[in-house]
Amino acid sequence: MGSERLNKGLTQVYTGDGKGKTSAAFGLTLRAIGRDLKVFVIQFIKGGFDYGELHVIQELPNLKLRAFGRGKFITEMPPTDEDVKLAKQALKLARKVINSGEFDVIVLDEINVALNLKLLDVGEVMDLIKNKPRHVELVLTGRDAPSEIIWMADLVTEMKEVKHPYAQGVQPRKGIEY
Amino acid sequence: MGSERLNKGLTQVYTGDGKGKTSAAFGLTLRAIGRDLKVFVIQFIKGGFDYGELHVIQELPNLKLRAFGRGKFITEMPPTDEDVKLAKQALKLARKVINSGEFDVIVLDEINVALNLKLLDVGEVMDLIKNKPRHVELVLTGRDAPSEIIWMADLVTEMKEVKHPYAQGVQPRKGIEY
Repeated sequence: MGSERLNKGLTQVYTGDGKGKTSAAFGLTLRAIGRDLKVFVIQFIKGGFDYGELHVIQELPNLKLRAFGRGKFITEMPPTDEDVKLAKQALKLARKVINSGEFDVIVLDEINVALNLKLLDVGEVMDLIKNKPRHVELVLTGRDAPSEIIWMADLVTEMKEVKHPYAQGVQPRKGIEY
Repeated sequence: MGSERLNKGLTQVYTGDGKGKTSAAFGLTLRAIGRDLKVFVIQFIKGGFDYGELHVIQELPNLKLRAFGRGKFITEMPPTDEDVKLAKQALKLARKVINSGEFDVIVLDEINVALNLKLLDVGEVMDLIKNKPRHVELVLTGRDAPSEIIWMADLVTEMKEVKHPYAQGVQPRKGIEY
């Protein structure tokens, strides 16, 4: 209510093997909320994990989040039917949220990973990008974004790992890595 | 009170010409706050701008922010005495905040830019990194991080611009770019 719509929403992609893709999406979310824009975050793959930011996000106004996933990383190949089902549910919700016109910024977190695992059809996601309402800013994250997605996007940033402490034996830390 | 300290804090750097460096730092901040860690963000250079996230951040618990800058980008070379003075004030506060031991995550936003503009001495920032308390996670952002900083850091991510809409004539948008 009373928030200014974006004149033209773009499609942004954060990809690459480096840290900060999801964090950048959440940082953008903070900025949008600060301007009274309405944000919906849909998490592919990683649903069910306990991430620190989820504890704060629930308190924020104008932000909705739904996570789809089995609470663990998909390591076995091929992925299970359950993984496919969850990814399809997430995409269905994404389509509904995007087309509702009610939200200004919509984050499809880790959708690139779901595409790479062939949990989703890239053509369907391309259609989603192509047909989104003009005011909607779409943000897609996840490593190894398919070339079709990069081609469709307006703004693409690659997070490149230059130096990573896991190589030095540092384990993921509560409050920083999750 | 009652928050678990990090066993070992690292020094993280977000650099490169791509989007998402400051956003990644703010996203990390959300995650840390969600774990009851205490966060202090010090902004070099860009103080005085009206960024969307600042409107939300003030509401968050366990997060402090101070911005130092003249409210406009430094375009004239060499920078003015005022720019140098503000950067030095910011660094002085950073030293105090880091050494107080009261904070778990400390973000020095755009400090790489201040270093590149020679507003600060890189040796002083190297000392800061070297002598920080063990539990402190330090996050330095800004394009063109000096090689000395990359060398000192544990975790370095380069945000690489793959595609950018400004090239297509898109102006910065409220709620997204600021």
